[in-house]
Amino acid sequence: MQAVIGQSIFAGGLGFPLMVVRRDALEHNVVTMAAFVRDHGLELAPHAKTHMSAEIAAMQLAAGGWGLTVAMPRQAQAVRGFGVDRIMVANQVVDPAGLDWAAGELERDPAFEFLTFADSVTGVGILAGHAGSRPFRVLVELGHEGGRAGCRSLDELLRVAAYVQETPGVELAGVAGYEGGLKSGDEVRKYLDSLQEAVEHVRVRNPILSVGGSQWFDVIGRELVATQAKILLRSGAYVTHDDGYYRERTPFNRMEGELRPALEVWAHVLSTPEPGLAIVGMGKRDAPYDEGLPIPRRGGVTVVTMQDQHTIVRADGLKPGDLLAFGISHPCTAFDKWRVLPLVDRDYRVVGTITTNF
Amino acid sequence: MQAVIGQSIFAGGLGFPLMVVRRDALEHNVVTMAAFVRDHGLELAPHAKTHMSAEIAAMQLAAGGWGLTVAMPRQAQAVRGFGVDRIMVANQVVDPAGLDWAAGELERDPAFEFLTFADSVTGVGILAGHAGSRPFRVLVELGHEGGRAGCRSLDELLRVAAYVQETPGVELAGVAGYEGGLKSGDEVRKYLDSLQEAVEHVRVRNPILSVGGSQWFDVIGRELVATQAKILLRSGAYVTHDDGYYRERTPFNRMEGELRPALEVWAHVLSTPEPGLAIVGMGKRDAPYDEGLPIPRRGGVTVVTMQDQHTIVRADGLKPGDLLAFGISHPCTAFDKWRVLPLVDRDYRVVGTITTNF
Repeated sequence: MQAVIGQSIFAGGLGFPLMVVRRDALEHNVVTMAAFVRDHGLELAPHAKTHMSAEIAAMQLAAGGWGLTVAMPRQAQAVRGFGVDRIMVANQVVDPAGLDWAAGELERDPAFEFLTFADSVTGVGILAGHAGSRPFRVLVELGHEGGRAGCRSLDELLRVAAYVQETPGVELAGVAGYEGGLKSGDEVRKYLDSLQEAVEHVRVRNPILSVGGSQWFDVIGRELVATQAKILLRSGAYVTHDDGYYRERTPFNRMEGELRPALEVWAHVLSTPEPGLAIVGMGKRDAPYDEGLPIPRRGGVTVVTMQDQHTIVRADGLKPGDLLAFGISHPCTAFDKWRVLPLVDRDYRVVGTITTNF
Repeated sequence: MQAVIGQSIFAGGLGFPLMVVRRDALEHNVVTMAAFVRDHGLELAPHAKTHMSAEIAAMQLAAGGWGLTVAMPRQAQAVRGFGVDRIMVANQVVDPAGLDWAAGELERDPAFEFLTFADSVTGVGILAGHAGSRPFRVLVELGHEGGRAGCRSLDELLRVAAYVQETPGVELAGVAGYEGGLKSGDEVRKYLDSLQEAVEHVRVRNPILSVGGSQWFDVIGRELVATQAKILLRSGAYVTHDDGYYRERTPFNRMEGELRPALEVWAHVLSTPEPGLAIVGMGKRDAPYDEGLPIPRRGGVTVVTMQDQHTIVRADGLKPGDLLAFGISHPCTAFDKWRVLPLVDRDYRVVGTITTNF
């Protein structure tokens, strides 16, 4: 079941189910997002947690990415292994092993840049306790009511920022936030205002302001245009887009341009035990199911449910051995199911390999 | 972040989140299930799709397992790589690459045994079309109304069985079924009756009858005791059990004995942005969420929701850097999130490594 470069995925060598990455769509998305941030004076630190792939990271950096965002130290270590010089961990990091690694890496390589978030004095204390000769650079995180992490008020944020500035081993680099959980453009605008206010209040030369950026980068591009801070967008899912969750939520639904779905799963019909019922050989180990079930490319096929190794569909005219294609919903729970994926051209010829590092 | 044998997982070398396998529980479960099948005259072909781990497979086979069950050819190839001589694919196999591999393996190694299911003439035709010098041994699958794959009537099953017997390249080995989707002991008994009837009607010397066996092995043990067929139970999840889905459904809730949860995820509190709210550094990439959310080991902690990299909990008195332990629900979507897991003793000292091969 080896992928042979130049050969079609249907030539017989590859087994199914199989998730493929469509090169055209991937390249289109990388270029589209790079152009968007350039046109809006932003910088992109693509969230590598989506794919955790050296090959895709290289494309994102070649297109002008600032560096990579990750969610935790283990991912930072992995992308550092890709040869990446700038890493932002978009969380308060408290893991001793991870911090010790980062401190060692900062010491070893003067060119290595490492940013982390903090939203509490306790968190800053943990960072400081693991710092080496070069301090950890910190973005103080401002959250919002009903949100995830982040200080809940400007006062609190300024207290944490002040603590960073008076504590050896840590250094204030700016402000971070996450707008992804907000429900409307108005809510996002209000929250972005509070982030701008925060970044104006923290006394840092050349501050960074980092925001999410999968569902609201249009609003971010408009609202943060006059900010003096360097805006680091952490968009991740854009790179493969999808046929479900992000298809419905992409900012390109509100402006010109588009992202294209780059992930597709192909699977065999294993059994058609009743008229109109087919059991497909693709399950929860092969395709995401948490933000919508796979989307059949063929009309007249309805996905009923997914099990560990099977997808139950309603459709007429299928027989065992038929191959079906499905788009996916939610790339972040797609890549982590595969260690190797063929990169294919428009004719499904293998043109490369995408490896993941979860 | 390397596991050091003999060292505690809390000694500082390992990063979090971390899923561990508790050796005591694992060994207890392997021994318990082996004793159950021995006492009931059954044989166990543990479903390796649960763990896809060479180390756990070795324990299951050492305890007397017939061989291993898998769900698809890619898994068959992987467990064959563990050095396993008997593999049952618990599905109608239609994947050309997988069948070509299996045919080659049968030809190469006269000691290799390979069983597959079939529930249609079309499926049998596909098998026959890929057979090599040694035929594919086939269990004809009997399903039930509302079930997954499998012939929906005895007549249909006997037609498929007859087709297997008259077709070169395939050989009838017995009957298979799957009772896991049934809702009550009565439904299971009725279905097991139909399987027994089927195995009496197919004309095979020393027939095999394979059934599922995670939720109803007590009923199977009682009902199939007088059957002449060799009963191959395909239980999988038993080996680690869990604190959720299987804890509620194990047959040991209806008889003496127990299985013990062997999987546990440890993760840091990253942020406590509001009183009573904590953001934990464990997400959908680290622990299962499809059949119940992780189960906190500490009282007073309630899991609200899981995101890609975070779990939101309600609890008082937590602070950033605190480590929390969680049991899991549904081992089949736990192992596939990890490539390496430390095997730990009662004191969380690392005593070995469990690798997975998804």
